[in-house]
Amino acid sequence: MDISGLLGILFGFACMVVGILLDGELGSYWDTASVFITLGGTIFATMANYSFKSFKTIFKIIPIALKKDKTDFKQSIQTLINLANIARREGVLALENEAESLNDSFLKKGIILVVDGSDPELVKNILETELDFIEERHEQKQAMLYSMSAYAPAFGMAGTLIGLINMLKELDKPENVGPSMAVALVTTFYGVILANLFFTPLAGRLKEKTAIEVMHKQMLIEGILSIQVGENPRIIEEKLKAFLSDKKQTEISKKEKFIDERETR
Amino acid sequence: MDISGLLGILFGFACMVVGILLDGELGSYWDTASVFITLGGTIFATMANYSFKSFKTIFKIIPIALKKDKTDFKQSIQTLINLANIARREGVLALENEAESLNDSFLKKGIILVVDGSDPELVKNILETELDFIEERHEQKQAMLYSMSAYAPAFGMAGTLIGLINMLKELDKPENVGPSMAVALVTTFYGVILANLFFTPLAGRLKEKTAIEVMHKQMLIEGILSIQVGENPRIIEEKLKAFLSDKKQTEISKKEKFIDERETR
Amino acid sequence: MDISGLLGILFGFACMVVGILLDGELGSYWDTASVFITLGGTIFATMANYSFKSFKTIFKIIPIALKKDKTDFKQSIQTLINLANIARREGVLALENEAESLNDSFLKKGIILVVDGSDPELVKNILETELDFIEERHEQKQAMLYSMSAYAPAFGMAGTLIGLINMLKELDKPENVGPSMAVALVTTFYGVILANLFFTPLAGRLKEKTAIEVMHKQMLIEGILSIQVGENPRIIEEKLKAFLSDKKQTEISKKEKFIDERETR
Amino acid sequence: MDISGLLGILFGFACMVVGILLDGELGSYWDTASVFITLGGTIFATMANYSFKSFKTIFKIIPIALKKDKTDFKQSIQTLINLANIARREGVLALENEAESLNDSFLKKGIILVVDGSDPELVKNILETELDFIEERHEQKQAMLYSMSAYAPAFGMAGTLIGLINMLKELDKPENVGPSMAVALVTTFYGVILANLFFTPLAGRLKEKTAIEVMHKQMLIEGILSIQVGENPRIIEEKLKAFLSDKKQTEISKKEKFIDERETR
Amino acid sequence: MDISGLLGILFGFACMVVGILLDGELGSYWDTASVFITLGGTIFATMANYSFKSFKTIFKIIPIALKKDKTDFKQSIQTLINLANIARREGVLALENEAESLNDSFLKKGIILVVDGSDPELVKNILETELDFIEERHEQKQAMLYSMSAYAPAFGMAGTLIGLINMLKELDKPENVGPSMAVALVTTFYGVILANLFFTPLAGRLKEKTAIEVMHKQMLIEGILSIQVGENPRIIEEKLKAFLSDKKQTEISKKEKFIDERETR
Repeated sequence: MDISGLLGILFGFACMVVGILLDGELGSYWDTASVFITLGGTIFATMANYSFKSFKTIFKIIPIALKKDKTDFKQSIQTLINLANIARREGVLALENEAESLNDSFLKKGIILVVDGSDPELVKNILETELDFIEERHEQKQAMLYSMSAYAPAFGMAGTLIGLINMLKELDKPENVGPSMAVALVTTFYGVILANLFFTPLAGRLKEKTAIEVMHKQMLIEGILSIQVGENPRIIEEKLKAFLSDKKQTEISKKEKFIDERETR
Repeated sequence: MDISGLLGILFGFACMVVGILLDGELGSYWDTASVFITLGGTIFATMANYSFKSFKTIFKIIPIALKKDKTDFKQSIQTLINLANIARREGVLALENEAESLNDSFLKKGIILVVDGSDPELVKNILETELDFIEERHEQKQAMLYSMSAYAPAFGMAGTLIGLINMLKELDKPENVGPSMAVALVTTFYGVILANLFFTPLAGRLKEKTAIEVMHKQMLIEGILSIQVGENPRIIEEKLKAFLSDKKQTEISKKEKFIDERETR
Repeated sequence: MDISGLLGILFGFACMVVGILLDGELGSYWDTASVFITLGGTIFATMANYSFKSFKTIFKIIPIALKKDKTDFKQSIQTLINLANIARREGVLALENEAESLNDSFLKKGIILVVDGSDPELVKNILETELDFIEERHEQKQAMLYSMSAYAPAFGMAGTLIGLINMLKELDKPENVGPSMAVALVTTFYGVILANLFFTPLAGRLKEKTAIEVMHKQMLIEGILSIQVGENPRIIEEKLKAFLSDKKQTEISKKEKFIDERETR
Repeated sequence: MDISGLLGILFGFACMVVGILLDGELGSYWDTASVFITLGGTIFATMANYSFKSFKTIFKIIPIALKKDKTDFKQSIQTLINLANIARREGVLALENEAESLNDSFLKKGIILVVDGSDPELVKNILETELDFIEERHEQKQAMLYSMSAYAPAFGMAGTLIGLINMLKELDKPENVGPSMAVALVTTFYGVILANLFFTPLAGRLKEKTAIEVMHKQMLIEGILSIQVGENPRIIEEKLKAFLSDKKQTEISKKEKFIDERETR
Repeated sequence: MDISGLLGILFGFACMVVGILLDGELGSYWDTASVFITLGGTIFATMANYSFKSFKTIFKIIPIALKKDKTDFKQSIQTLINLANIARREGVLALENEAESLNDSFLKKGIILVVDGSDPELVKNILETELDFIEERHEQKQAMLYSMSAYAPAFGMAGTLIGLINMLKELDKPENVGPSMAVALVTTFYGVILANLFFTPLAGRLKEKTAIEVMHKQMLIEGILSIQVGENPRIIEEKLKAFLSDKKQTEISKKEKFIDERETR
């Protein structure tokens, strides 16, 4: 669990509650009709917007969006260089045993393709096609959360219109006008908060996660292809380090030594 | 019929109705003038926006958008691998009989081109041109629904302006102000609901369908071209499986065996 | 004249008129000041937005947008195949006489380039450059109508602000407030209607026309280049039919025979 | 000075003035606080948005946007064909003298590179890099005007909020409410007019100018490279004419003859 | 510190203060609840939108956005030409000592790759991958500021809704209505000002900085690759000068001479 996701949402709600309590009372902010209109409208419009198969995934997406990203670029570079060293010393066939113990299924698949002696063009083609479709599926999930963040304020507005229309039909009881309008505005408030403190941030988290995953897989592809053509592990390290930020590159240069120089030179 | 489309729209409307009934009555939400302005304006602006030939298709689009997607990637992979096995054993000419029994007209066309001995470049060129224009035509249909979802709130607003102008001309009868404003707001409500519970979700469904169809046809092209150059069916399987999600790939590995290994090795 | 353009606009206006008459009277919807502000503002802002040379073309664009598209893909395929047959039997030089009688100036230009014995690379380069700039010029014209559809509601809002400011200065005559506000809102109404029932639909029509013209010219380029390298007319037919929809392709297969098979085999 | 720029802005303002005078008086439309908020806010937000070096150029951009575009495609084609003829007859070195008298610095630079005997790849590379960065710098200037047209209505709204807040603090003097609200709305009016009658049109003009300049320079590059490889001037003419509209192409064919046919054949 | 950043923000605030003081008093513009809702909501929604690791960088971004850009294209061209001269006279190995004294870590890395005798394709690949990810990381930081500038007005609106709802619940005390509505509007005002005088301008500054950095690094890559293949320093100068504006190119031609002509010819 990455702390920023839940904490951001909680602290954001806390700010709203503090803002409400400084001048009013929380009781005015619950309205059953508004929940039906805003939350129900948003969920069912999203359901109508997607095939049922896609819509179901929404319940898996939210915990994924909140989870901490565990991608460890440095560890993956280390793994790739180890594999490169083995491939250099003992040939690519020796990678067969190593492949078994790899955790990353994408890397594993790539290494197995290499061990199988597939054509480098084919390995590249297969891994890139797979990456393209992983990216596409992730973007669809973000898109689902972004449509929810667009539906929420629209149904918030629809609810406020309903509230105003109901109120205007009974203008003859002036003592009801204030409270009725307040209730009408609560629905817009729900829509704004749902969109800006829930759906948009979650979509943003998924977007960041996808970017990291795609960059990681691009690095893996680069590494796998370099191993296949038998490049020098030191050069592979140079290539892969370009995927890291300056700061991380320096850390590696200082603290760690990926390659036992004697072996590779 | 994919259940999410109709159910989403129905449940969405149900939420609106519940929201209305909790504080008011449904009767206030029917206004003939508003229907003319919102629905009429939206339909005729869309008609003006497109050639009559394109506009007519709108009536075919809606049932298509609601229909369940039947594309079966696994079945298509199986079919392509069967064709690849036949081509390997008996030559591409033997595919002529098989082509007759294929249901997918795009695949059929591709196989006939292969049987005819067309140049691989030409086969690729023809199939990709066709895919491009299929995609373009689908995007135009989505665009039509997206323009309707943009016109609907605009005409909703136009109707509310009409309602307000009519009301303001008769401010001397104060007992009419409330009901008149209520009627004015009904038009905006129609626009919001039409856009967010009908046109936008339908456009979204078409978009998802198009994405699946395009991905499926890309897979077919990949398969057809691999068959033409006589690639090993096992490699073709690897290539085509990259178009599936991880989960489906595992299912295939576990439950099914596309290829009789003895034959292809 | 494509009926959908004018009819859409007319029926759309009719819906507005019906909507108005059901509750009020048309007289309230004419205001000279509002016409100056909305229509004048929109036209002159657009004039300021473009060079005078571009701005002048606006008067030619509107009838073009309303005109029916006459592009006949099937006829063009037939023409290209005829030319291909002549080129095969009698050589490309024989196309010189044919070129004279061609109506389509783009096709004519391409055929003359072929007859002149220009390098295929050069023919492709010239025709594609020309297509690029045709597309660019068309997009600029769409852009002009789209900016008008963005200026119209902005000046509608400006007019409403003017109306409200004028009214607020004279709040001491309460009997004027209603009618003055009504007049103020008329300007916003003008802006919404101009944008959504006139400029946006016209821009949309131009966009559709451009898409068809570009697709048609791409098909002509494909055909011209195939004729130049002396491809088999049957293959050319296959290639060009990929530019048609499935339905039209079937029509051709059933009803017509482009090529006399004895001649080309 | 291209007349449409200034005239469009002037006539647009005139329409606003007429619209104001038909119902009210101009005096109500001046408010010092509103000028500070709208114009000051827009200018200083733009200043904060850019480095001081970029921000300074805003004062040069406006006259450039208003100036008439003098690019003469036909004249440039004539010049390129003359150069091509000289290069054919006397070799590219003979272009050295001609280069001196060229007005267009981009063309001059290209011809000097050709005379210097630079590699064609290098000439193309240098000229295209230069064109890319010219385009980028122009787009940044447009972007500056577009941000001003986004800041103006935002600060207009900020000013209206200030006006309303000030007014609401003094609700006990009801005779002030009308005039105070009028003043509050004036700021929004300023923002709308600044954006739609000034910044957006100017940005649009720059965009059109950039498009013409880029197209012109692309034509020059095409011409320079053709001269370098010694292409036939008649072919160069064909290539360059593709950059003109149909109408202009016909004018050239009819009225003018770029090339003395005897010389080049 | 680039003066335009801080001064723009300060002068912008000053304009708001002047605008407020001309009609009202500053005291009405402080409201604790509004600060919680607008600023708290914006910050925590942004926190929820990003992983904690990314969110933390926000505090480093703001001073970076305000800092003056120190990139000196002319100095870098001079450095590259010096390196090119050394490489020509003494071979690329002689660059090893020079590399030590280079300040720019990107240039240093490139030169070391050249000295190491890496394949030109590899050098290009590594440097371009690194540039791609530098660009991506910068764009993520801009995106963070842009999301803050989108969240701020949304939470401003949420706060105004809270204020209105609280007020409407107490309509029975009419003397409170004015001040309560004023407080409600203050929150919207905060949102507009935060977005338009703080977050958007800062994001704009970062965007400009990124564009300059990317262009500079592209020039360095061009230079490094030219040095590696041993191109003539005079040609390198021509190539690199294409990255400068016309004005700067002329300055260089007039005032400075990068290359001692005798040496290179």
